[in-house]
Amino acid sequence: MNFLEEKILQDGVIKEGNILKVDSFLNHQIDVDTIRQMAYEFKRRFRGKKVNKVLTIEASGISIATLLGNLYDVPVVFAKKSETANSTDDKYISQAFSFTHKKHNNVFISKPYLSATDCVLIVDDFLADGQAARALIDLVKQAGGQVVGLGFAIEKGQQKGGSELRAEGYHVESIAIVEEMDWRTQTIRFRQQLPLPLSKAKLSLG
Amino acid sequence: MNFLEEKILQDGVIKEGNILKVDSFLNHQIDVDTIRQMAYEFKRRFRGKKVNKVLTIEASGISIATLLGNLYDVPVVFAKKSETANSTDDKYISQAFSFTHKKHNNVFISKPYLSATDCVLIVDDFLADGQAARALIDLVKQAGGQVVGLGFAIEKGQQKGGSELRAEGYHVESIAIVEEMDWRTQTIRFRQQLPLPLSKAKLSLG
Repeated sequence: MNFLEEKILQDGVIKEGNILKVDSFLNHQIDVDTIRQMAYEFKRRFRGKKVNKVLTIEASGISIATLLGNLYDVPVVFAKKSETANSTDDKYISQAFSFTHKKHNNVFISKPYLSATDCVLIVDDFLADGQAARALIDLVKQAGGQVVGLGFAIEKGQQKGGSELRAEGYHVESIAIVEEMDWRTQTIRFRQQLPLPLSKAKLSLG
Repeated sequence: MNFLEEKILQDGVIKEGNILKVDSFLNHQIDVDTIRQMAYEFKRRFRGKKVNKVLTIEASGISIATLLGNLYDVPVVFAKKSETANSTDDKYISQAFSFTHKKHNNVFISKPYLSATDCVLIVDDFLADGQAARALIDLVKQAGGQVVGLGFAIEKGQQKGGSELRAEGYHVESIAIVEEMDWRTQTIRFRQQLPLPLSKAKLSLG
């Protein structure tokens, strides 16, 4: 069990309706130690990939993207969800349905902040049906850039986002994948993921 | 001239209507090096203060708060602006008028994430009339906590937020304070702030 699965078991709350509440450490209050570990874990899982931009969507993905951008030392861009009065720039615009807010959101990025030379790592807190991820991929494609990979803190394994994106060839990494959860018993079963590679310390014992 | 004033002169754009656009490095695309320097600068300016929580409001303040929380190694909380379907918790609720969006927003924090033992450092990207800052102070007070200080990247010196908060005794630090700006000539005058304390290297020359 990895650090995030342990944290979810310790501090997450399962609500009726297949809702996993992690706002005590991920998307309202932020436990920086957990987010820091996530940034290192994403960098490990995407090692060897050239990344020159980290992309997320407001608001919950911003803290993860910031600590990951800090590790890669590359710019972070967060897509916005609504028009603002002082935003008159040309934009790349896509749409995503938010199950949380039960509405379609415009998702946009001002054109200067995505380009055809960008190798983009997309990160967000949750992957479920993949609506937000699809919108972010669409924005990168509109700019002619390349999606290097997609990293999520928590994936809902029974929803279609992850399986569809992987089937299309995207490199998707989710630190914790929830296969089943039960709000009555407050139990969660995670998908077993490949273990960490053996460390040099362990290898030297062989 | 400090690093942020230099960055504003280099990459900011002044728009008609007293609007300073800094979305190339602060609130759409994020230059992590600038935000990292801001975190160190806030920690320096609030040195000696006991801080056990960093508080901001979604979305633009989150990257600053995350890197500052990372430095202090304390939890970050971001206040939210709209009700979400899976948020049925008891909340502290306040209101702020957004000049950007021309409407009143509910601003709220779930009760478990602010308490009477909290020594809170509030941070945000902009201070103008102080509407968002007032709402955050109100939320901390509702919880019985203490506002240790308020740090802003950019303060609009001709708007009332900063002067009123300082007059009430709050420790307010803004890394760049814009006194005047002119969109026709693209010129900015910053308020002169106390210089950095002399470094040991300089002192040893005396």
